Formats: sequence, structure tokens, C-alpha cells
Amino acid sequence: MGKKLTSRKEDYSKWYNELVVKADLAENSAVRGCMVIKPYGYAIWEKMQSELDKMFKATGHQNAYFPLFVPKSLFEAEEKNAEGFAKECAVVTHYRLKTDPEDASKLVVDPEAQLEEELVVRPTSEAIIWNTYKNWIQSYRDLPILINQWANVVRWEMRTRLFLRTAEFLWQEGHTAHATKEEALAETQLINGLYADFSENFMAIPVIQGIKSESERFAGAEETYCIEALMQDGKALQAGTSHFLGQNFAKAFDVKFATQSGGLEHVWASSWGVSTRLMGALIMTHSDDNGLVLPPNLAPIQVVIVPIYKGLEQLEAISKVAFQIKKELLAVGISVKFDDRDKFKPGYKFNDYELKGVPLRIAIGPRDLENNVVELARRDTLEKKSIPLTALTDHIKTTLDTIQKDLFNKALGYREEHITEVDNFEDFKSVLADKGGFISAHWDGTAETEETIKKKTKATIRCIPLNEVPSKGKCVYSGKPSSQRVLFAKAY
Amino acid sequence: MGKKLTSRKEDYSKWYNELVVKADLAENSAVRGCMVIKPYGYAIWEKMQSELDKMFKATGHQNAYFPLFVPKSLFEAEEKNAEGFAKECAVVTHYRLKTDPEDASKLVVDPEAQLEEELVVRPTSEAIIWNTYKNWIQSYRDLPILINQWANVVRWEMRTRLFLRTAEFLWQEGHTAHATKEEALAETQLINGLYADFSENFMAIPVIQGIKSESERFAGAEETYCIEALMQDGKALQAGTSHFLGQNFAKAFDVKFATQSGGLEHVWASSWGVSTRLMGALIMTHSDDNGLVLPPNLAPIQVVIVPIYKGLEQLEAISKVAFQIKKELLAVGISVKFDDRDKFKPGYKFNDYELKGVPLRIAIGPRDLENNVVELARRDTLEKKSIPLTALTDHIKTTLDTIQKDLFNKALGYREEHITEVDNFEDFKSVLADKGGFISAHWDGTAETEETIKKKTKATIRCIPLNEVPSKGKCVYSGKPSSQRVLFAKAY
Repeated sequence: MGKKLTSRKEDYSKWYNELVVKADLAENSAVRGCMVIKPYGYAIWEKMQSELDKMFKATGHQNAYFPLFVPKSLFEAEEKNAEGFAKECAVVTHYRLKTDPEDASKLVVDPEAQLEEELVVRPTSEAIIWNTYKNWIQSYRDLPILINQWANVVRWEMRTRLFLRTAEFLWQEGHTAHATKEEALAETQLINGLYADFSENFMAIPVIQGIKSESERFAGAEETYCIEALMQDGKALQAGTSHFLGQNFAKAFDVKFATQSGGLEHVWASSWGVSTRLMGALIMTHSDDNGLVLPPNLAPIQVVIVPIYKGLEQLEAISKVAFQIKKELLAVGISVKFDDRDKFKPGYKFNDYELKGVPLRIAIGPRDLENNVVELARRDTLEKKSIPLTALTDHIKTTLDTIQKDLFNKALGYREEHITEVDNFEDFKSVLADKGGFISAHWDGTAETEETIKKKTKATIRCIPLNEVPSKGKCVYSGKPSSQRVLFAKAY
Repeated sequence: MGKKLTSRKEDYSKWYNELVVKADLAENSAVRGCMVIKPYGYAIWEKMQSELDKMFKATGHQNAYFPLFVPKSLFEAEEKNAEGFAKECAVVTHYRLKTDPEDASKLVVDPEAQLEEELVVRPTSEAIIWNTYKNWIQSYRDLPILINQWANVVRWEMRTRLFLRTAEFLWQEGHTAHATKEEALAETQLINGLYADFSENFMAIPVIQGIKSESERFAGAEETYCIEALMQDGKALQAGTSHFLGQNFAKAFDVKFATQSGGLEHVWASSWGVSTRLMGALIMTHSDDNGLVLPPNLAPIQVVIVPIYKGLEQLEAISKVAFQIKKELLAVGISVKFDDRDKFKPGYKFNDYELKGVPLRIAIGPRDLENNVVELARRDTLEKKSIPLTALTDHIKTTLDTIQKDLFNKALGYREEHITEVDNFEDFKSVLADKGGFISAHWDGTAETEETIKKKTKATIRCIPLNEVPSKGKCVYSGKPSSQRVLFAKAY
């Protein structure tokens, strides 16, 4: 395992790609654009899943599972949604292979096993789910429906990158049905807030909550809420979206309910999701040139103990202390690994755990034993301290909390420094080129201006932020009146 | 919700289908052979997942994720495996839809977006995983690899039934790599034992551990271990399998490792899985004509409280007590629901929770309040008792444990009564026709005899049981020498 990563300064994109592979998070597979999520990367994803799942359940949602395939006729029912995803659909056309008549060791698609109707591998599940909800909803008594599903989806992207954009990815998708517009909208906002809470307080990733412009909206939505994060290279990353779908899918699938007052109305809907893309956000928010940096909440191993020894006798004495430390840490819910593998040198181990972002490293040598101390190193600051054994567990607990907060504050500081108010297009271009980050600028509200700015600068409107008090001004490009600043950025 | 199920005696198969739908476990979808797993059914599956996942991790396994698709050329590499699954493969041939030139509201497959190589939707993942392991394994130091994945798989079955046989199903699949034959075989056996433990001690389903005959073996395996359960209609159900793959996949994908002594050898492998089929086993082992019966370990709601009242005042008084009970039960980790919905009558609620298999029901009426008691009803025995409030939590804890054990013992009793030793083919046929269950009979070890018996009786060899002391005898069909009795049954 060659440790040396390309530095971020040298080549940010290369740094990312190398880090993902060298830290054993994921790798490309034999299937174009599809990744293999390796055990270490998957363990981090499991921690995200587990926390999100708890949060969904605590807000009244239940999990269910809907089919992987969407018959083409259902897929095309909601026109905008279909149009938005048609260009990147994996399509199943046959259900059998047979022996190649020309080479018995090969298989070919059996032309006699063609499906009457093609099946789309779900790029998102609104169509199949709303076709199901149709049978579940008759009356207001059947509402709301608050369902989430953990699943894989496929979008045939042409340019893929591990975690950030892959043909197949893992995600959760919530699909809710409501009796009123207000309730569906409240649900959409509730979940966007939940995503922001999760991102900031669990993943230590600061995000801006906002609304998408029409051209960046989810295909089939009336309004898309989002959380936007900022990566260390000054590019934004959409970390989660929550869509208010209005009655679009209810109309496409003819889902009506008898109201309490005896009427018959179309159902209101929301859908929302976060995906393994969050792994990319996590990596690019916290990590450094030595490798991954993990917030303690997400670290599969929070503390690693590395013995520094010569000969079995020293190892034995150190092991005794190490096992005691491990026991105490496990007892307070801290995950810990004692790496006593003899075939690797301490220096190799230090590098490896740095690369893998283990938040705290304990090193114990013979002299430490004599003095009843250990050396404790923080992954985020690389700071080392000698800590008395008697105070170790408490010290580690506090330090893990501190690291979690420090990582958030560091990222928040960076993000705050990288929101720049700009009032003319020359500044817009130069800030984008020299500094990066979010540009807060007035926009005239038209898709044309948005498109022109995108063409000229590659920056898009990331969101119309929710927390901002609207203030009137003039569009940074067209000079036309604008009612609010929006956030532009180059984005992943 | 019409409660009345078809009885098992009347039509077992219909009873099963009705129960699955009426208890809100699952339903058929718009996609041929694919099911929708509804929240209540999925909550049960989540409990299985969570327990199994813990057991896998406790035995040193890690989770990872591999692609949904298998390129055809990889799929065909292991010949037997390919041959076994080729006939039921969903095949992706295109990656784009376009607007139908003849009808702008429709989509058609874009013929210009044909894949160079077709992709098989995984029916099982040995091929894609061993193609990946090839890059992970160079030396004995890289072994063992102990990986599990939770995933969906697709097998294009012609005749499908909810949970028991569906085109798409959910499962876990373990794929391990080892330096020696002994180690791979030990892993295969370890997991089969783990499955038996899980099935019996968590799901209360007694199983027989055994080995499959060659014709029932997994395509590509050297040996298939299995756990076999017995349903209430006397048919067997294969509940889990663990395969010793020998070096078959290592050879197909050229996976070699440098041994400690400097040689170069092919890697040894195991693979193993259980699926949502377990839901079918669960339902058919314990349930009755009133609906689902759930072991407390798997019940999303373990205790339901139903108030019996007239008017708001009574409801309020009962609610006070109900909330106190709920609080106490939750405090000791028992899941409980207080159903105070006013729009449904107690009788309706009783039926509904019976249908859904909630293990314990508490009913509280005004007279119970006066006497400081509640009525407690067991779902499995339908027995009702008046229990003093002061002793309630303890009583419920004990009763839940008792139900868990009673369900296992009841099922075990049934299973034991339905293993019949048979020594001639006339008895074989009559026992199979009149009594059902497992038939323990001598078999000459040939695929021909096995096939003939299957043709004549529809019974197959479920397994060569592990726990039986081999005793010589004569084949029940051919009269040829046999070294051990095997278990025959009709099976799901």
C-alpha cells in the first residue's frame, strides 16, 4: 500500500480518486460506471443508514420495498419525470440466455425470450410507487402514507466518478401521500430540515438549505428543496433533495381520495432522497493530503491502539495494558481496534490508519509503560499528547466530542469565508475563477439568464437560500430587477 | 378489511395467499412476478436482517456492495453456474429510451443505445464478486476474505408466489475466500449452523441440517449444505443454503494466491444465503385460520392495548392506565401500541390484530379499571386471562418468552410427528399421499433413482441429514444397497 497521495493542491480530482481507492472505500468494477463499495467504505455508509433510518422512524415513517423494474408504460405516465430520466435508463428487454449455437461455451440472448413490454431499471421509483398507492388510497382515512425505501437505482451516466456519480448507486427514497397541499409541503420541508440536521450534526458537514430554480428542479416536481454543501476545492455539492410533487403523480396515475366532506380529490405528494453520494461529500469536506479524515460519528474504528515494541516480551506487557484500555473504551461505547499484527511496522500502521481516517491513535511503547502514560494522536490536527492511563477513557470521550465539533466548525469557517456577495458580472467571473465557493448575487428570475451565466462561467444556481431575508436589487447579469440574492457555484 | 380467511383445511394454498395480502405483508405488483413488500411485512424482514447481520459480524464477516449487473462474458465464465441460471436471467440490452416517433406521449427503446455487451441482472453474485476478488488476492496474507452483501436479485421464475418464489427477491449473500479446502469447508458448515441457530432460536422454526444430493446442489458448488423446514401442509421448505464452492470460481476467474511456503495455488471458496423466502417459512410454520401468528422476536408490535369504552370520559380514564402500561413495557424493551382510534370498534380491532399476529393483546374496560386488572389474550393459544395491574409487566415479559418457546415446541412436535421411516415404495407413496411430511428412506445414491421417484411421486430428496448415524440398508425404490437414510418430501 503506497501511502503517498497526490496533494489537493497538485490535482484535487486525482487526490480524490486516489484517496477513495487507497483508503479502501470503493473501486471501479467490471461494469461500466458501477462501483464496488468495499467493506471499510460500506461500514461508513451503514452508519449513515442507521442514523437516518432512526430519524425517519422517529418522524413517523415506515420502510417498505417496491420492485426494481418499472414497466415502460408506467414509466412514461408522468411526462416530465419520464422525459427527465429517459435518456439514462437501463432497459431489460429479454428474460433468458441460451447457449450460443456457434460456440457452446458462450451464451447469447434468446430472441424467443423477448418481453412483451420492456422494463426500465428504476432510476427513481415515483412511477411504480404511485401506481401501487392507487390501490392503497380510497379515502382520507388512508392518508397520510409515509413510506421510505432503501434501494439501489440505476442512471446511465456517461461520465462517472466513485460515489459522486455512478451508474448504479444506493440511496433511500421517501414517497409520501397527503390529503392537502399544506401537509405535503410541510412534509417536504420537514425532511429537508431533517437532512440538514443529519448532515450538520451527524456528518459534521455544514449545508445551506434552499430551493432549486426551475431548471434545476427534479423532473416531475413543483418545487425542489435541497441542502448544498461546499467542498474544499470551492465547488458545491448537492447533498440531498426533497421534492414537493404537487398532484402531478396523483394525476398521472389517477390517485383520488374521498375527502372527509364527501368530495373526491387528487392526492398530494412528496419524495426525497439521499444517496451514497454523501460518501463523496464526507470525503471532500474533511479529508487532507494524508488521507481520509472521519468525524467520530462515522468512524468504523474510532480509536486504534498500536504497540511499539521489540520482541515478544515487550509486546506481551503492552498487550496487557492495551486490552485493558480496549475493554474500558468498549464499555463506554467507543469502537476500538488493537493492531498487534507482527508483520507490519508501527510506521506502516500509523500511515495506514491516517489514510483511513481513524480519529484517534494510541501508541504504547516500553517507556510509556514505565511512566503509566500513552501517546494519543488526533487524526484531524495530527497533534500528539502524552496522556496518563488513569485519565485516558475520559480524555478520549471528550476528545472524540471535540473532534466532531471541530470538524464541523472548520468546515463551517471555510464555507462562510467562501460565500461572496457580488454585484457585477466582472466580479462574478473573477471571484469564481480566483476564489471559488458560493457567489451570492441577484438574479432576474429567468431561465435564460441562468442558462447564459452557466454557459459563460459553468456556474449554476445551487439554490435560493431559505434563511435569507429577501432584499431587492438588480440582476448581476441582465441588470433587471431581482427580489432576492441566490447562490451560484460550480458544482459536482 | 374482511377478516374471514379461507381455512387451511379448505385450501391451504389459498389460505396462504389471502393471509399474506390481508395481514398487509406483501402484494403483487404491476411487474410480472415482482412483489411489493408492505411496511408491516418489511418490519418483520428488518428484524430478521438485524439479527442475522449481528450474527454475521459476530463471526468476523463484513458487509460490502457489488454491482447489480454482471457482464455476459463474466456471467458465462463458470460454466455450471452459468448453465444453471441462464434460463431465468433478466437481460439489459439498452441504456436509453427516446420519444416514440409515432406518438410523442410514448417512449421506445432507442436502437442506437444498444450495449456492446449485454448485462445480466444478478441472479446471484459469484461471477461479479470473484472477478473482483481476483484483484484483491495476491498472497495468503490477503486471506481469508469474509464478506456478506444485502441485496436484491432477479430470477425470472415462470410460476411465482409472494415471498416463496418471486422474480425479484431480497437476500443476503456471503462470499468467502480461503487458503485451504478445510477452512472453506469449515466456513460453509459454520454458516449452515448459524442459519439453523437463527431459524430455531430466533424465528422458532425447527430445521433439519443436511447436505443436498448432487442434482439439488447449487450450480457451481461442490457441496451444498442446507436447512430444511416443514410447513403445516406437510411440504418441506428449503430455508437457507451454504455452498462449498471448492476452487471452481477461483479457476474460472484465475484467482491464485502465493502460499506461505512460496507456491501459487487457487483460492477456496464458500457462498451462502437466505432470502425473503424466510417470510414464507415464518408464515406457514406458525399461523392459523385466524391469521398470522408471530414469535415475539419477530413481532413489530409485541403487545397491543385496546380500550373498551363508551364515551370520552371512560376513554380518558382507560387511557391514563394504558399510557402507564405502555411506558412500563417500553422501559423493559417491549414494543407496544395503544390503539385508541375512535373510528373502529373493539371487535374490529381484535380481529385485525389477530390477523396481524400481534402476540399479546391487552383489553381494558371500565370494570377492569375498578378491579385494577386487565384482560390479557395470547394470540397463539387464543387463551384469555385477567391479570392484576401490579403484576402486569412481569407477567407479559414471562409470557412473551413462553410464547416464543411454545411456538418452537409446537412446530417441533409437528415436525417430529411428520418424519416417517419407510422401507418399501408402496409405503413411501401412501405415506406421502396420506400423511405428508418427511419420509426417511434408503436411497441407492444414483441420480436416476432420485429422478424416477420424483417423477412418480413429486417428492425430492430434501437432504442427507447431518445428525443421523449412517445405517446400511436397501434403496426404497431400486432395492440396491444404501449407506444411509435420506429425507424425501414434496417441497416448496
